[in-house]
Amino acid sequence: MPRGFRAGGWTAGIKASGRPDLGLVVAPQGASAAAVFTPNAFAAAPVKLSRANLAATSGEPLGGYGYANVIVSTSGSANAATGADGAADQARVGAFVSDALGVEQPRVLHLSTGIIGTRLPLDKVERGIQALAAQLGDDDGSLASVAEALRTTDSVAKIASTTVVLPADDGEPATVTVTGIAKGVGMIHPNMATMLSIVLTDAAAPPDVLWSLLRPAAARTWDQLSVDGDTSTNDTVFVLASGASGAAPVRAGSPGAVALGAALEAVARDLARQQAADGEGATILITTSVRGAHDDADARAIARAVVSSSLVKAAAHGKDPNWGRIAGAAGNAVTASEAVLGAAGLAPADAAARASQPVSLDPDRLRIWIAGHLVFDGPQGGPLQFDRGAARAAMDAPELLIELDLGLGDGVGEAFGCDLTQEYVIENSEYTT
Amino acid sequence: MPRGFRAGGWTAGIKASGRPDLGLVVAPQGASAAAVFTPNAFAAAPVKLSRANLAATSGEPLGGYGYANVIVSTSGSANAATGADGAADQARVGAFVSDALGVEQPRVLHLSTGIIGTRLPLDKVERGIQALAAQLGDDDGSLASVAEALRTTDSVAKIASTTVVLPADDGEPATVTVTGIAKGVGMIHPNMATMLSIVLTDAAAPPDVLWSLLRPAAARTWDQLSVDGDTSTNDTVFVLASGASGAAPVRAGSPGAVALGAALEAVARDLARQQAADGEGATILITTSVRGAHDDADARAIARAVVSSSLVKAAAHGKDPNWGRIAGAAGNAVTASEAVLGAAGLAPADAAARASQPVSLDPDRLRIWIAGHLVFDGPQGGPLQFDRGAARAAMDAPELLIELDLGLGDGVGEAFGCDLTQEYVIENSEYTT
Repeated sequence: MPRGFRAGGWTAGIKASGRPDLGLVVAPQGASAAAVFTPNAFAAAPVKLSRANLAATSGEPLGGYGYANVIVSTSGSANAATGADGAADQARVGAFVSDALGVEQPRVLHLSTGIIGTRLPLDKVERGIQALAAQLGDDDGSLASVAEALRTTDSVAKIASTTVVLPADDGEPATVTVTGIAKGVGMIHPNMATMLSIVLTDAAAPPDVLWSLLRPAAARTWDQLSVDGDTSTNDTVFVLASGASGAAPVRAGSPGAVALGAALEAVARDLARQQAADGEGATILITTSVRGAHDDADARAIARAVVSSSLVKAAAHGKDPNWGRIAGAAGNAVTASEAVLGAAGLAPADAAARASQPVSLDPDRLRIWIAGHLVFDGPQGGPLQFDRGAARAAMDAPELLIELDLGLGDGVGEAFGCDLTQEYVIENSEYTT
Repeated sequence: MPRGFRAGGWTAGIKASGRPDLGLVVAPQGASAAAVFTPNAFAAAPVKLSRANLAATSGEPLGGYGYANVIVSTSGSANAATGADGAADQARVGAFVSDALGVEQPRVLHLSTGIIGTRLPLDKVERGIQALAAQLGDDDGSLASVAEALRTTDSVAKIASTTVVLPADDGEPATVTVTGIAKGVGMIHPNMATMLSIVLTDAAAPPDVLWSLLRPAAARTWDQLSVDGDTSTNDTVFVLASGASGAAPVRAGSPGAVALGAALEAVARDLARQQAADGEGATILITTSVRGAHDDADARAIARAVVSSSLVKAAAHGKDPNWGRIAGAAGNAVTASEAVLGAAGLAPADAAARASQPVSLDPDRLRIWIAGHLVFDGPQGGPLQFDRGAARAAMDAPELLIELDLGLGDGVGEAFGCDLTQEYVIENSEYTT
């Protein structure tokens, strides 16, 4: 638990199951905040309110960054597709937090997950916030209890943490902590924030710098996570920097910013992998690693296409070293052109929906490895005779690594997914989300 | 069977199962030809050769139209990802056809489907072509036997036919026939040609006019078909026009062209629906119908997003009237801008991968019906209390209709898909394609 935060989870009674469903993370002295949100046109009420609050505290209407004192999370009811009533409900949640903790409403950020189209039980949420506000702690268990309260069908709570030494401006290196929690199963797909996550650090960073570190880290991690191709209405990542470590504020482009960005990405990657491994019905974590692409955007697009393919996912489940499906999925990938992105001044994930083109891929240069076995070698004519029994045995593991070398350039990227199982179908045929 | 064609299917021995695996369609007097092909970067050898042959006969390198006398199809081995050897193999198939039927090689078009990465057994194919060339017929059963020979895991052969009266230029209306056959299960997704189909007509049309009728018909039908989100390396649609009806050639934009285009689209839609219904493991045909969109491209994009969503597909299987998943999927849709397409002179499907943007969608105007039940009414505040039992009962049918009215404009579109079942997972875990 980084310094400068208090946190706790609670059972407010939103969930019929009686499990924890309310969380608070508080930065008593305030924090810089940065966020990435779902691009879904049906963005939920908490997403809209958080976006507006960040804009109010930073004066940047589209920036996705600002200042905050509190993150409030509810699970069990997504407060999505609830119209004006839902917006009013979420504003009431902000008022409850404001009253209980004595902070201004624009400094409260909101997260919610659960069933779409149901209203929040405001009376229960109000009582829960009042009770929880008096019980916040600053130890690791406090943050873990927020992670518990984020869960819906997650089989486990997800937490990742690292420390990094920042080369301080005055010559005194400072050690800062970056810790994240997340929830995510089902409805997880690239094209952005992908699920709910809260990352806390006691480093100091202005909001715009924090956002400039979050965006590329998310592009290489959460944007590369796919469970079933759907992107939820509520996906949100928040990063709060309390500055309580005493480290000097990191400046854009400084060695400290680079180090903090790397720590943030390490935590994001760890959480994204935990989320992929916990996909609904999943039994295998699939990591696709692409190198030799024309550029990183191509590499990431191909990696995403492979882990998103239902046929590849089913083959992984069946321990079938089916390179044909991998090649077919790679060949379907489309990517946002780096040139277009640069010209438009857009971050990759924001631009992906706006300008895309087929990736550069030459079957005669492509090589594919499945679980360490080279199975397709374009420069050597393509399909190889390989030991299928050995490849199948290597695939019988909790994690499957699929590697592609495009032989075209220096672009690298990876993506995270899971196998497609009968249990996924059963869960999603029988469970109303 | 339209006039001016001969056809037949054969068991050459490509498939280990001993089922029919070789087909020939012959236009002895020649035919105008138009095609749409997979955009997959891993395009198979038959796709590349067909594209080259059309270019050779028309002089238009990128047009996708030209002249042909023969279509040859093989199933069991896709001849995809087979490199230079595969290209040479496919050229040999062309030579076998040329020898057996006395036509020039560039006037032979090629289709293939089956396992990726295996070589064609050329000796068996050669003997099959020689035997089949002597046994072609011109009755309905002859074409049906080609449909049989296209099958891989299709549960049934797919055939559709219609007749239309063309207002001839000289005042004598002529009746022409349009008949199509198709195969398609698994690896079926928009972004074009989607699967294998052969459409024959005895109307007369120059190749470029035929292509101009095929492209929008495919955009509204096959491009709107999704089984599992993958697009194969071999997807191809061929349309041949023999002119044997004696009807005057249709001219671009003429009433005859409009009538022929409508007949072509009716056959394409029928085949696409048969293909969706026969998706691997599918038990329900899902049709999504969108109206009130900003434009047709938006409507089609939203319809595609809904039928492609794994969560919607699983809900359909579970008879769950889960409008939240439908709304979420619609909100994720991205569309190729009509303005961008027009400026670039591109057909929608060609441009879709190059320039796209989020669709226009306002949750407060959206209305959703599931199996005829209004379940979400944005103008009335969103979620409705509805009779879930009655809705579930209405969903217990071989076809599920999901309707969305966006309340924004006059754009309409539809898309075709199927439910996601445990059988899909079983088939694709255990079957190497």
